[in-house]
Amino acid sequence: MARRTVVIVGAGFGGLAAAKALKHANVDVVLIDRTNHHLFQPLLYQVATAALSPADIATASRTLLRGQANATVLMGEVVAVDAAAKVVRCADGKAIAYDWLILATGAAYSFFGHPEWAQEAQVLKTLDDALDIRARLLGAFERAELSGDPAEARKLTTFVVVGAGPTGVETAGTIAEMARMTLRRDFRRIDPTQARVILFEAGPRVLGAFTEPLSAYAKKALEELGVDVRTDTMVEQISDGVVQAGGEIIEAGAVLWSAGVAARPAAAWLGAEAARNGAVVVGPDCAVAGVENVFAIGDVASYAMNGAPLPGLAPVAKQQGDWVGRLIRARLEGRPDPVPFRYKDWGTMAVIGRSRAVAMLGGLRMTGLLAWLAWSMVHLMLLIDFRSRLIVYVNWTWAWFTKGRGARLLTRLP
Amino acid sequence: MARRTVVIVGAGFGGLAAAKALKHANVDVVLIDRTNHHLFQPLLYQVATAALSPADIATASRTLLRGQANATVLMGEVVAVDAAAKVVRCADGKAIAYDWLILATGAAYSFFGHPEWAQEAQVLKTLDDALDIRARLLGAFERAELSGDPAEARKLTTFVVVGAGPTGVETAGTIAEMARMTLRRDFRRIDPTQARVILFEAGPRVLGAFTEPLSAYAKKALEELGVDVRTDTMVEQISDGVVQAGGEIIEAGAVLWSAGVAARPAAAWLGAEAARNGAVVVGPDCAVAGVENVFAIGDVASYAMNGAPLPGLAPVAKQQGDWVGRLIRARLEGRPDPVPFRYKDWGTMAVIGRSRAVAMLGGLRMTGLLAWLAWSMVHLMLLIDFRSRLIVYVNWTWAWFTKGRGARLLTRLP
Repeated sequence: MARRTVVIVGAGFGGLAAAKALKHANVDVVLIDRTNHHLFQPLLYQVATAALSPADIATASRTLLRGQANATVLMGEVVAVDAAAKVVRCADGKAIAYDWLILATGAAYSFFGHPEWAQEAQVLKTLDDALDIRARLLGAFERAELSGDPAEARKLTTFVVVGAGPTGVETAGTIAEMARMTLRRDFRRIDPTQARVILFEAGPRVLGAFTEPLSAYAKKALEELGVDVRTDTMVEQISDGVVQAGGEIIEAGAVLWSAGVAARPAAAWLGAEAARNGAVVVGPDCAVAGVENVFAIGDVASYAMNGAPLPGLAPVAKQQGDWVGRLIRARLEGRPDPVPFRYKDWGTMAVIGRSRAVAMLGGLRMTGLLAWLAWSMVHLMLLIDFRSRLIVYVNWTWAWFTKGRGARLLTRLP
Repeated sequence: MARRTVVIVGAGFGGLAAAKALKHANVDVVLIDRTNHHLFQPLLYQVATAALSPADIATASRTLLRGQANATVLMGEVVAVDAAAKVVRCADGKAIAYDWLILATGAAYSFFGHPEWAQEAQVLKTLDDALDIRARLLGAFERAELSGDPAEARKLTTFVVVGAGPTGVETAGTIAEMARMTLRRDFRRIDPTQARVILFEAGPRVLGAFTEPLSAYAKKALEELGVDVRTDTMVEQISDGVVQAGGEIIEAGAVLWSAGVAARPAAAWLGAEAARNGAVVVGPDCAVAGVENVFAIGDVASYAMNGAPLPGLAPVAKQQGDWVGRLIRARLEGRPDPVPFRYKDWGTMAVIGRSRAVAMLGGLRMTGLLAWLAWSMVHLMLLIDFRSRLIVYVNWTWAWFTKGRGARLLTRLP
């Protein structure tokens, strides 16, 4: 019988875990991703705020799977799935046949019915996004210094962040910290500590998925860092760097968007049932109903546990990927299915600046330095290879002691 | 009397050394550069071949001068000098007045009367150049793997390097090493070790500035790495990835240019005497004749010692910058000029792959591991701040032991 093929689309936490779980299976594994690397997204905001370099949080997928003889890594963009023919189609026309298909393409941002805002506001999803944001932030201070005009400088160094989930909170907090602490001595004509950071949130609390006391703690930490927090405020308009929200008009040097997550169009590819945010609805075994041998994991999937969808977190994707890999292997080998998938909660954390954080783990609630240490440990363990851990550790330690921004490179004014 | 201003154009080895030498002078120092960082160019080829990351070899100029109260750093592009009005003009129209001017703008590449080749071949001068080359190299292997067609793969992974000075030799050697060693296990459909690297040199020897035995050693080391070395061969045409040289037609996946260095147009800005390669002719004190209080240092200057111009090396720029800074300070303070400038030769080195190198220091000639160690030490000492040294050391050690390519990131196929 011909050797069969598992095609995995997406080299994030889910896709990579599934590939690795199939290491010893008698099957060919083809991993397709739009980039050539696995990206550690939880730390992407640190690349965007010039604390870490891209290579600190990303590793070539080939490097990660070089020791796995049955794994082929391809760099390509999947645009369609022909479930009847059991083939995925790439943007360049190539078709790749599968016996099993695992979709792990993750999520993207949505703009609440204002797709034109994608040109106005920057999202943080890929390394290119992070480098664009970094260039915009650093460039704002450079232009301000060149101009030497206080009014111009103030406008240039006004930064708006939309959406107070973990990403928005982490980003807003570190921009404020960068302006008030890191850059303080670096400029002569302007005072970088006069930069403004405004965080808009449509809901009543920052970190709405956390408990109320943790939300309140995070809000206070943000304000102590100098962030202007505006909850219960929806953004009405963004145009040419001008943000209209809560009845106010703000001229901003950069607008960062971290509200409104929507899943990538895998459900549309399959003609399958989609959840409200576009995610593919899957069964308890991560399988997509109505198509044969197709699974969806991670942020692209809507997996219900105890009546509610699992959150879009890295440990969810990783555990699902590993489980589905083991399931496919068991079926190939004629063994019984593994124990039904059960998500083990590693906790939810968000960090605000250098030493403030909030964390929830089961019934535990942590704030401050303890939460920050827990956050650091979990993230270091999640980092996929030893070299990244060592490098990130060195860079963090250096940044901690020197309050520095290690990766502040700008090749031209954007 | 109003405080006077020294304007320094260029934040390379020369410009930064001059700025630092003026730290305690009673003068304002304005350092202008097109980018926001100081770049360690000798290691740029390692970013281009994905061994190091940009942040490993570049540091924000503001960070380097943050502790120097009299230094202002501006990010801008100088396009003209009005020596009568004592003003430099930037691309955006800004004019910056000086009492003393130090030009340290370095060199660029020339294409021997074929400016159209600038679209065909990539040079290695800035971080952007290095990242473009890296994308081109990595992308070539990715496209080859996607195609799966041996003939297509061979064409894609044929790399041509023009110019066998240190940069060309170092680059060609590491590309060959990357293909034969680092990437060997990473691909399934193609054999990366079948990649071709061809190094063209118009002159009779590689590393023409070195002695004949060292040239011969380098050529042998290159050939052992699998580089096809073609001396006495001029490139006649480059068009659409097709290189015509020595009567042969070669279809290449990437063409890298490291022949023909020409200085940036500072001489034209000043209307001053230029050497054959465009460099500004300066006197023994690095001053430009015919204009008041203007100095030129490093690769942009042609400084004659013992009848021949000093080479375009980092230690030359650094020593000249430091000396001119001290000269200006002495004149400001009414003290005698420092002892006349005398270049101290730190040696010339070139590295070929992981453990081969050639070095000349005074009368000493070194090859092999000894030269490589000397090269490593000198470069580590030249690296401008401690953090870079530590990070580069960790990355080098890791790369050495794992024969890996630490910074192999590609966000989209170029």
